[in-house]
Amino acid sequence: MSRHPQLHEDGALRHLLTLEGLPASLMTRILDTATSFVSVADREVKKVPLLRGKSVFNLFFENSTRTRTTFEIAAKRLSADVVNLNINASSTSKGESLLDTIDNLAAMQADMFVVRHAQSGAPYQIAEHLNKTGSNARVINAGDGQHAHPTQGLLDMYTIRHYKKDFTQLRVAIVGDLLHSRVARSDIHALTTLGVPEVRAIGPQTLLPAGLEHLGVQVYTDMRAGLKDVDVVIMLRLQNERMQGALLPSAQEYFHAFGLTPEKLRLAKPDAIVMHPGPMNRGVEIDSAVADGPQSVILSQVTFGIAVRMAVMSILAGH
Amino acid sequence: MSRHPQLHEDGALRHLLTLEGLPASLMTRILDTATSFVSVADREVKKVPLLRGKSVFNLFFENSTRTRTTFEIAAKRLSADVVNLNINASSTSKGESLLDTIDNLAAMQADMFVVRHAQSGAPYQIAEHLNKTGSNARVINAGDGQHAHPTQGLLDMYTIRHYKKDFTQLRVAIVGDLLHSRVARSDIHALTTLGVPEVRAIGPQTLLPAGLEHLGVQVYTDMRAGLKDVDVVIMLRLQNERMQGALLPSAQEYFHAFGLTPEKLRLAKPDAIVMHPGPMNRGVEIDSAVADGPQSVILSQVTFGIAVRMAVMSILAGH
Amino acid sequence: MSRHPQLHEDGALRHLLTLEGLPASLMTRILDTATSFVSVADREVKKVPLLRGKSVFNLFFENSTRTRTTFEIAAKRLSADVVNLNINASSTSKGESLLDTIDNLAAMQADMFVVRHAQSGAPYQIAEHLNKTGSNARVINAGDGQHAHPTQGLLDMYTIRHYKKDFTQLRVAIVGDLLHSRVARSDIHALTTLGVPEVRAIGPQTLLPAGLEHLGVQVYTDMRAGLKDVDVVIMLRLQNERMQGALLPSAQEYFHAFGLTPEKLRLAKPDAIVMHPGPMNRGVEIDSAVADGPQSVILSQVTFGIAVRMAVMSILAGH
Repeated sequence: MSRHPQLHEDGALRHLLTLEGLPASLMTRILDTATSFVSVADREVKKVPLLRGKSVFNLFFENSTRTRTTFEIAAKRLSADVVNLNINASSTSKGESLLDTIDNLAAMQADMFVVRHAQSGAPYQIAEHLNKTGSNARVINAGDGQHAHPTQGLLDMYTIRHYKKDFTQLRVAIVGDLLHSRVARSDIHALTTLGVPEVRAIGPQTLLPAGLEHLGVQVYTDMRAGLKDVDVVIMLRLQNERMQGALLPSAQEYFHAFGLTPEKLRLAKPDAIVMHPGPMNRGVEIDSAVADGPQSVILSQVTFGIAVRMAVMSILAGH
Repeated sequence: MSRHPQLHEDGALRHLLTLEGLPASLMTRILDTATSFVSVADREVKKVPLLRGKSVFNLFFENSTRTRTTFEIAAKRLSADVVNLNINASSTSKGESLLDTIDNLAAMQADMFVVRHAQSGAPYQIAEHLNKTGSNARVINAGDGQHAHPTQGLLDMYTIRHYKKDFTQLRVAIVGDLLHSRVARSDIHALTTLGVPEVRAIGPQTLLPAGLEHLGVQVYTDMRAGLKDVDVVIMLRLQNERMQGALLPSAQEYFHAFGLTPEKLRLAKPDAIVMHPGPMNRGVEIDSAVADGPQSVILSQVTFGIAVRMAVMSILAGH
Repeated sequence: MSRHPQLHEDGALRHLLTLEGLPASLMTRILDTATSFVSVADREVKKVPLLRGKSVFNLFFENSTRTRTTFEIAAKRLSADVVNLNINASSTSKGESLLDTIDNLAAMQADMFVVRHAQSGAPYQIAEHLNKTGSNARVINAGDGQHAHPTQGLLDMYTIRHYKKDFTQLRVAIVGDLLHSRVARSDIHALTTLGVPEVRAIGPQTLLPAGLEHLGVQVYTDMRAGLKDVDVVIMLRLQNERMQGALLPSAQEYFHAFGLTPEKLRLAKPDAIVMHPGPMNRGVEIDSAVADGPQSVILSQVTFGIAVRMAVMSILAGH
């Protein structure tokens, strides 16, 4: 029987690779566990010994100081030993294959790999290899290509649950470059799995992937129509490089059509929350008045993100 | 009432940004606290748990392995979790603003930022922002542009007090490129605050800033005259790039006029000590016979520097 | 009386610089100590407090993520504080000398330096300097130029002893580019010291150093003849840059003559083990069928390498 490599035979979580197909019960367990870690951050001593003596390897094949830092902080608050590896400059430049690198690090008794890779599927490939070789090491996908960013998806769910309590009554809009966004993909899988009845995708035709309807998503190319009466607005970062391709006219035009301004935000419910995975392009996809305004929960996402990553790590480590 | 962002309302230290205007009582408290940490270094286990569970972020917008290392060591000896961020390659390259980066890291519950920045005032700007947003995070300026390097200034004071006991009887000469030196600026503020009656600046006209007299400093362009009967000689590093501009003739000529040789040092008091913030340019601003000679306390400065940084961190953390 | 800088007057280990001239008793003591650390890796909490409060500095003047990681893991499992310094970008670029850098780090009360340097003899020079200046800091050579890589040599000995028990009955072949290999040099010294009666060097004439016979090594340029009835095959990495020089024809031809294939391996004893220091060039010096085959102990070398480095560190620290 074919099984997803991220699950044990008994259905327990072995790796965290994608939210696609992850049962709601597992997502909810992660969010519940994260709740207990949110309070750790408020303590005088922000540490728990759950991963003491464990080795967590941050394997960043693609540079991302911000994401690496959140995992590093999460692991250290769990008392793990953390080793940071930026693999560009390393063995791969000596011609070693990805899986040889993994075998070597696993032979150093790594307990957990946090993997960021420009290539979609790389963390999946690593997890399958570890499973096959009988290793007990765990893999957390910290973003692979345009495929998935499951911990970002989970922290977004944590944030929504924190502010809105019940997923089953919500309208959620995701706005911007969904085509290239692993965050959007992970969010959509999580939202639909957790029972959100209405998920909307808003963006220019050129930045909306085909087949969104099959995921249960309603598509809008008119932002004002799409924002109408939503409870949650998830803004996506617009990569500057998109502007240089033929996909987009200019930053100003983009902002005019799809930038979140106070005026456009008024179309959403009065208590709608505004989210963004960061880093923001102020004045491109979001107006500073919104980013810093009372409906923004962008910095709460960051705080919850640490707790969610602690939760994932501690569950994978067997607690 | 306008107050310096580095002080709490009750006058206690909130951040350490500059020694300019810092009361003598606070400086003395830091030096006294450092004394207790000097002995930690001699223990079998060189650690105290004062910052256990705290997160210290080394934010280096300008590369400086040496300074970063001293703060990293100091934080680890206090049992803090340390995260090193070299921000050149990071989010700022993705177009995120300095304050957005800070907000994000603060949202990760950073307890302390050690900030090095090429731009004068950056740590000040960060501290003001944190104060304004209600964050409890602390900022230590680890060198900003040509403005200030307060922990270097304090470790210099520690060194002088260690060898000379009483500030109020001293003649101190600072020699070299005072124009571009944040170390010189911090030293001058500290020396005058702590009651040193005679501070001398020695250097070529082109490397002496205007207005030194207003800081209570006597200016000498003749090194021999300036060194006469001093108790302390603080040599400054001559940045090589100064040589390429029109400011200076050549390394040899500079050494001849302003390099500290055994012969010139004999003009100072027989028990004068020689200091240097490092890294040294041997044969440019200092002769090896002096750098490695019996009057040199340059390596003691490094040792005391760890203790002084531990003291600043532990005071800021509320101990 | 002239003494090797790596030994104390009483013959105890002060630094680990080279296996050349290191007494068999010391090697055996390191291997025995490593045995006790192999089991630490299997524990729930993979840590022992032997180096708690000690500061280990990884000084990598030459980039090597893999080797640096093994030392970092080893030090952290001993509960040391680890500071990683890549010194290319650092003070040396500011013109500071190697020994000034060392003096500075020693003044920060470094307990141990793990040194990797492109220049043969650099760790030796550092150790001599520390001895001379009365410092108690220890040096571990993590690879210097083409000279020595003693911890790799020791982990190779550990691996051989683990699988073959008795050194005094063995035939060991080292295959490939011995000319440029510090691993080969360290292995040869260790093997002959530990009583291996027959050590063979196999490679093309251009990659075999002169004088191997004086080290007690038998030279083969025919791989099939050299592999005959050996117990251990140590394959060496073929640096790609050798191919570009005139030293070698092509990767294919090299593989044909000196690549380890299942067919060639059958010439060795049936229970011969295959070793490689990594990273491997599959299809150049070793066939994947061998690298991943039942006789390969390549990943065990990595695991034992952590234990051996823990052993060296704990012995140097005085335990």
